[in-house]
Amino acid sequence: MRAIEWDGKEFKLLDQTRLPQTIEYIKTGDYRVIVEAIKRLSVRGAPAIGIAAAFALAFASKKIVSSSRSTFLNELDRIASEIESARPTAVNLRWAVQRMMKRAGSIQKVSGIPEAMLHEAERIRLEDIQMCKQIGLHGAQLLPDSGGVITHCNTGALATGDYGTAQSVIVTAIEQGKKLHVYAGETRPLLQGARLTMFELEARGVNATLITDNTAAFVMKQGKANLIITGADRIAANGDTANKIGTYGLAVLANYHSIPFYVAAPTSTIDPDCPDGSAIPIEERNPGEVTHPFDVQIAPDNVDVYSPAFDITPHHLITAFITEHGVVSPPFKDNFKKQTDPGKVNQPV
Amino acid sequence: MRAIEWDGKEFKLLDQTRLPQTIEYIKTGDYRVIVEAIKRLSVRGAPAIGIAAAFALAFASKKIVSSSRSTFLNELDRIASEIESARPTAVNLRWAVQRMMKRAGSIQKVSGIPEAMLHEAERIRLEDIQMCKQIGLHGAQLLPDSGGVITHCNTGALATGDYGTAQSVIVTAIEQGKKLHVYAGETRPLLQGARLTMFELEARGVNATLITDNTAAFVMKQGKANLIITGADRIAANGDTANKIGTYGLAVLANYHSIPFYVAAPTSTIDPDCPDGSAIPIEERNPGEVTHPFDVQIAPDNVDVYSPAFDITPHHLITAFITEHGVVSPPFKDNFKKQTDPGKVNQPV
Repeated sequence: MRAIEWDGKEFKLLDQTRLPQTIEYIKTGDYRVIVEAIKRLSVRGAPAIGIAAAFALAFASKKIVSSSRSTFLNELDRIASEIESARPTAVNLRWAVQRMMKRAGSIQKVSGIPEAMLHEAERIRLEDIQMCKQIGLHGAQLLPDSGGVITHCNTGALATGDYGTAQSVIVTAIEQGKKLHVYAGETRPLLQGARLTMFELEARGVNATLITDNTAAFVMKQGKANLIITGADRIAANGDTANKIGTYGLAVLANYHSIPFYVAAPTSTIDPDCPDGSAIPIEERNPGEVTHPFDVQIAPDNVDVYSPAFDITPHHLITAFITEHGVVSPPFKDNFKKQTDPGKVNQPV
Repeated sequence: MRAIEWDGKEFKLLDQTRLPQTIEYIKTGDYRVIVEAIKRLSVRGAPAIGIAAAFALAFASKKIVSSSRSTFLNELDRIASEIESARPTAVNLRWAVQRMMKRAGSIQKVSGIPEAMLHEAERIRLEDIQMCKQIGLHGAQLLPDSGGVITHCNTGALATGDYGTAQSVIVTAIEQGKKLHVYAGETRPLLQGARLTMFELEARGVNATLITDNTAAFVMKQGKANLIITGADRIAANGDTANKIGTYGLAVLANYHSIPFYVAAPTSTIDPDCPDGSAIPIEERNPGEVTHPFDVQIAPDNVDVYSPAFDITPHHLITAFITEHGVVSPPFKDNFKKQTDPGKVNQPV
């Protein structure tokens, strides 16, 4: 099951807020509907958000009525900013929008821009699927022949074009014959681990156990887990990584228990303009997601809530990154640069 | 609001599974109803479980029809085992039942046993209230004049006879004029932090913020918390401590962030027969508490779940214990013994 479907005519987003009970798609060609879907996490996962944003901008371009190239591009730029601000932390969103704007700017005839943008959005989607496959292949070699793997949030097909990031690594290793057991943290407040990861792992026949987030430490202490692997929403130039709230705690716990902590993400998640984690904006979510999950009240009225959507894991707690180009070991700052050098593409560094 | 009320005639248990929305009492004189309430966590918190168990055994004794002392005590012993097995981890349950059996055994005339036992149960309740006050006073001196405190699960009046353990420490410090802000972990799966602790702290006018359990690490990293304090369900002779799942992870995180980690509990929680944490049985809860909170399905059908109710925090991660007799610093094994030596009572060691 894919988060985003596009057959050249119809664009569909799976409404992930309703999984696993209800499988319902949002069919739309309206960029505002897509922006709203990103905000309310109907589509989530940094790579999937990037793809959805690319299509949103392509659809928006079709509705701009102007034969003046500069007026057209100005209006497109305004909409691009609107889309970019849907969620502040994931950098793939900005990356995709900027790539789309670059493509638009490369077309001289205004009438040709919408079609070119739609092709570009589809290219981003197809490239993401390929990158996820590559991430899986590069990462699988790091996994042991048998053991337990803790993961957090959802990093599967639903978070990307297809296959996923961290989940692609796990599933590829299992397809290669490795005997792995996954412990999926439920991932409060929105329970992407319970709702989405367990759903995907079950569909793929992976041996998996659901745990509350606060059980992960004890699972490590009991020796049930040999490593942790997560995705990322933004990676600073030095390797500091923003990912779903709870990731930082898992990295500290991995360090304490002397087990590796891996981050799997496409290079579009690396933000070279961001020197370190302190420069990454952290989105805060609505308190109602904590106090009223699925409209059930679990806390007294009007309590104060602190609900950052992400936290920052400092680079020194990360054993290695896995990108579409290979495994990146420390020092990350230098080795990220080698990966983005075209001559080094597809060489593990 | 108290977990257990007894006015000499009517015995009432607050049904804590329904808080904070519904305030409903279970009124009963039937030990089986109390055992069921302990099993389903209508009454929870190690000290409160001990008190409820004491009353359960007293009520059971009134129903035993036998004028033979040995038949009477044998039947009482059978019921005592039944009550003890309601929950395996909290040692206060066993402690209270054994104290009640000792009292029963000290009465020569069978007809006098039920009344003596009822008095003993009430004594356990009143002593617990006094111990909680003492824990608060001893612990308050450890807290800084201002700062943030992380706590987990519920350790308030609802978990004890009154006042609480860890919460008694926090509230006493605030009553003494210390400016503290509490971060309460929601405590999945049964959300005692969100439902009970936030409810009690709000009622006491304490500044408190609710966080998901996986936010605690980031709160520490951001410098918002200066210490952690929790309760305990069983403390081994060497200081290894069983407490609500998630406690061990918090202790590791406190260690990493160089902030103190305190455990507040009455000495009845210390199990001298248990040499270390590996000897403490860990109760596993029903998977439905994770997959169907408040009857809402949040995971696919029939997923595998690992849901230990407790974890074990090794003694070396605990800065100090706070009991009714004072603050206990390492080495815990020796210093616990000094506390249980009557000559040393009320002397901090």
